[in-house]
Amino acid sequence: MSPEPRLLEVRKNVLKQNDIVARALRDRFHREGTSAISLVSSPGAGKTTLLEKALTLLQPHYRVAALVGDLATENDARRLARSGAPVKQITTGTLCHLDAGMVERALEDWDVGKLDLLFVENVGNLVCPASYDLGEDLRLVLLSVTEGEDKPLKYPTIFNSADVAVITKIDLAAAVEFDEHSVQANIQAVRPGMRVVQVSARTGEGMDTFLRFMIEQAARLQKGVCADTGAL
Amino acid sequence: MSPEPRLLEVRKNVLKQNDIVARALRDRFHREGTSAISLVSSPGAGKTTLLEKALTLLQPHYRVAALVGDLATENDARRLARSGAPVKQITTGTLCHLDAGMVERALEDWDVGKLDLLFVENVGNLVCPASYDLGEDLRLVLLSVTEGEDKPLKYPTIFNSADVAVITKIDLAAAVEFDEHSVQANIQAVRPGMRVVQVSARTGEGMDTFLRFMIEQAARLQKGVCADTGAL
Repeated sequence: MSPEPRLLEVRKNVLKQNDIVARALRDRFHREGTSAISLVSSPGAGKTTLLEKALTLLQPHYRVAALVGDLATENDARRLARSGAPVKQITTGTLCHLDAGMVERALEDWDVGKLDLLFVENVGNLVCPASYDLGEDLRLVLLSVTEGEDKPLKYPTIFNSADVAVITKIDLAAAVEFDEHSVQANIQAVRPGMRVVQVSARTGEGMDTFLRFMIEQAARLQKGVCADTGAL
Repeated sequence: MSPEPRLLEVRKNVLKQNDIVARALRDRFHREGTSAISLVSSPGAGKTTLLEKALTLLQPHYRVAALVGDLATENDARRLARSGAPVKQITTGTLCHLDAGMVERALEDWDVGKLDLLFVENVGNLVCPASYDLGEDLRLVLLSVTEGEDKPLKYPTIFNSADVAVITKIDLAAAVEFDEHSVQANIQAVRPGMRVVQVSARTGEGMDTFLRFMIEQAARLQKGVCADTGAL
């Protein structure tokens, strides 16, 4: 059972410039049958590692691509490009988040209609990205086991702006005495009913469930993407 | 050899309201002989754990206190208060950083002159806090071994605004295959000559060096704080 897209629901403010662009992007993704999925988290929570693994596993079977935001460096684009998927870096300078205009400009020379799944990795930040709709269908908020269980309570807005929580680096759970019960309770306190997925990109644990979820997401847009994930 | 305070050096912009308040705070700290030390990092890098340990170890020998910033919750203030030191939480709502005015207001009913060391833990964020001078003498930027070695390159501004880099959670270094050489090179690339301290608040490794550095810092303000750290 997928949660309903949350971004549409929580945005009650007047449409600002970003929202207008984001809405146009979302319409375009829907029209083209492309599922856009964004990732937010604090720096170092493992967005790029998870995404590199996901792109590598999906790329032989689906048409996938990624945009990746950072203040500086092209490091992440280089890492993601190892998957073989098309990747583009967006550098934001001193800005702590992507906005819809940056996504739109990055897509100018791409044929979005040829993509099943477009991933957008935001700048590592648990605050600023919360307010910027990027036109995505699904926003994943990542939380690594090393960060502490109370992050959802401390950064409620970003958890509220997201659709799914992904707990990363679960191979380190024992080493850091990760309290799964506590983090689950904190997520549900902030965003009741939120779906939570646990993964380790390093050991591969939980990757099946994570990928299946991404593909189901793409299948919902009915573009001939088969929800049968047996191919993976 | 301590580095010269960097905040004074890099700020070449016109003094804005924050800078005026920060300058007044800094003058006040100097006049009162209080060493103000701020901590910045991404969420979950271990600021609160390190600070709780430091306060607990320093509190019997020095007059220490802490302010701690978060968007929401009083969790960190509660954790830090276990040290026995005076602690006050600043909640910022949706703001991704403290500013000098928040620090000033939090200190309204405290006698700053009775403190040797005042710690200010900023909101967990590697972007926004970089631009806000809090009147501190020393800014520590924390980076945990689990976050990835390239963070200094990706968030150069905050590393540049800080005086000392503190590598945290070194007890997990082997588990995450932490590449010390690489992170040192990346820090020096962004901020040549930056002092780097390594600690594990959990095992206590490196805490001596870290505390000695804090006390030397306080001693520089010549308030009768003895730089001899034998008491600890």
